[in-house]
Amino acid sequence: MPRVITSHSNETIKRIRSLREKKFRAREGLFLAEGMRIVAEAVEAGAVPQMLVYADEARGHPLLEKLVAQCAAAGGDVIETTRDILHKITEKDNPQALVGVFPIRPLGLDAIRRDASFVWIVCQSLKDPGNLGTILRTADAVGAGGVILLDQSCDPFSVEAVRASMGALFTQTVVQAEGAAFFDWLRQGPGQLVGASLNTDHDYQAVAYEAPTFLFMGNEQSGLPPVYEAQCDLLVKIPMAGKADSLNVAVSCAVLLYEIFNQRRRAAS
Amino acid sequence: MPRVITSHSNETIKRIRSLREKKFRAREGLFLAEGMRIVAEAVEAGAVPQMLVYADEARGHPLLEKLVAQCAAAGGDVIETTRDILHKITEKDNPQALVGVFPIRPLGLDAIRRDASFVWIVCQSLKDPGNLGTILRTADAVGAGGVILLDQSCDPFSVEAVRASMGALFTQTVVQAEGAAFFDWLRQGPGQLVGASLNTDHDYQAVAYEAPTFLFMGNEQSGLPPVYEAQCDLLVKIPMAGKADSLNVAVSCAVLLYEIFNQRRRAAS
Repeated sequence: MPRVITSHSNETIKRIRSLREKKFRAREGLFLAEGMRIVAEAVEAGAVPQMLVYADEARGHPLLEKLVAQCAAAGGDVIETTRDILHKITEKDNPQALVGVFPIRPLGLDAIRRDASFVWIVCQSLKDPGNLGTILRTADAVGAGGVILLDQSCDPFSVEAVRASMGALFTQTVVQAEGAAFFDWLRQGPGQLVGASLNTDHDYQAVAYEAPTFLFMGNEQSGLPPVYEAQCDLLVKIPMAGKADSLNVAVSCAVLLYEIFNQRRRAAS
Repeated sequence: MPRVITSHSNETIKRIRSLREKKFRAREGLFLAEGMRIVAEAVEAGAVPQMLVYADEARGHPLLEKLVAQCAAAGGDVIETTRDILHKITEKDNPQALVGVFPIRPLGLDAIRRDASFVWIVCQSLKDPGNLGTILRTADAVGAGGVILLDQSCDPFSVEAVRASMGALFTQTVVQAEGAAFFDWLRQGPGQLVGASLNTDHDYQAVAYEAPTFLFMGNEQSGLPPVYEAQCDLLVKIPMAGKADSLNVAVSCAVLLYEIFNQRRRAAS
């Protein structure tokens, strides 16, 4: 049986809402995922919500009822509340009917099985959680292994990153590491480190990518630092014909991932 | 000589700040562009700022001084203010040193010279201004002609769209139209209408794109409506190998634009 909460000042609701902020996520070891679709992806990927909060008006929805039953069976806390309170948690004008609270499981480099995929993404000091979520979503689409976040990157467990990932946060392996530790780890096994850069004449389509490729994307403002470019086996450039000299980082990453994916599709056919 | 304003309650500052909201942009016929880089792109593309507001601490910066001189020469209003007040206008933690106020020039279908580029983007009910700005940025990068916004799409002159476009709003032709009027216009001249869709087996790489290609992208949630798909000369699908069944719309658009651009590069070489 779900608990029913209808008070905005309820302590559990306040605690859930606090998970929008990184310091409370760090303190509680929990994060939020909004929406039936994303929560269903999470559960399918093996994640168990510690809490589920749903709007009373959504009661009876078949997928919701299934998720509620799964959460309750795993010992999770199920809360029925109002649309207004859900709105307060999600801060969206059209709040999703469901919010899940999941445990943060931070992963290090030892979680990477490099032969699990032909391509991995490495991001250096990525700042925008929307970009990170979008990169995760594209990574899932091409069958990448996951994303390795180096140095001071944004929090993959932020509401914005989880939302933009459309559930891919739960299916991709997301690892956080320092640059030096990553380069050490990388050279202990197979892996072609390919940096996205403007400082090269290598057209991204004129290169043969070797599995596992580690596609290295730099920070939104400044790209890869020279010392990181120097670690790469290869730098590649996406040609541009317009006035601007750069692309959005999630767009660059997608264009490169699809080239790597397409080369693999051609080789298999 | 710039005017100096140091009061948060100054009416001009309030008026500029109000342009963050669509209703005030509509009333005033003006919109905001933030940052020296974007304002410089705008001026280079021939746009004349009606006002420039800069932070006193940026005085003396060579690019700033050049933009200020250009604005003043064109009869624009130049305002020197504080970092705090700029922060109030931009609502960013790290405010840009400069904000430009530009006139909105709404364009209709008759503004399109279809032979000006090999590819144009058509968006149907696009909702997210960040996606629109990112699409504009990628459109610029491949040398597209512009973006045609159909039906209830988001405002291309919103702060978020201008920011994400990184100045491409000023170099791309941005047109707003209703679906029926667009289809009428399209069929009065050359143009291959290619829809991005999941409802086809045509791999996007197995298709020969014919200039001018009009690449048709659907709404973030629901894709192209069936009646719009029926208008297309061709539907194409981006293959996906993961758990999810869709990509971010700006990512899909970029993957398709780069395929069209790459085919053209190969044909030219």
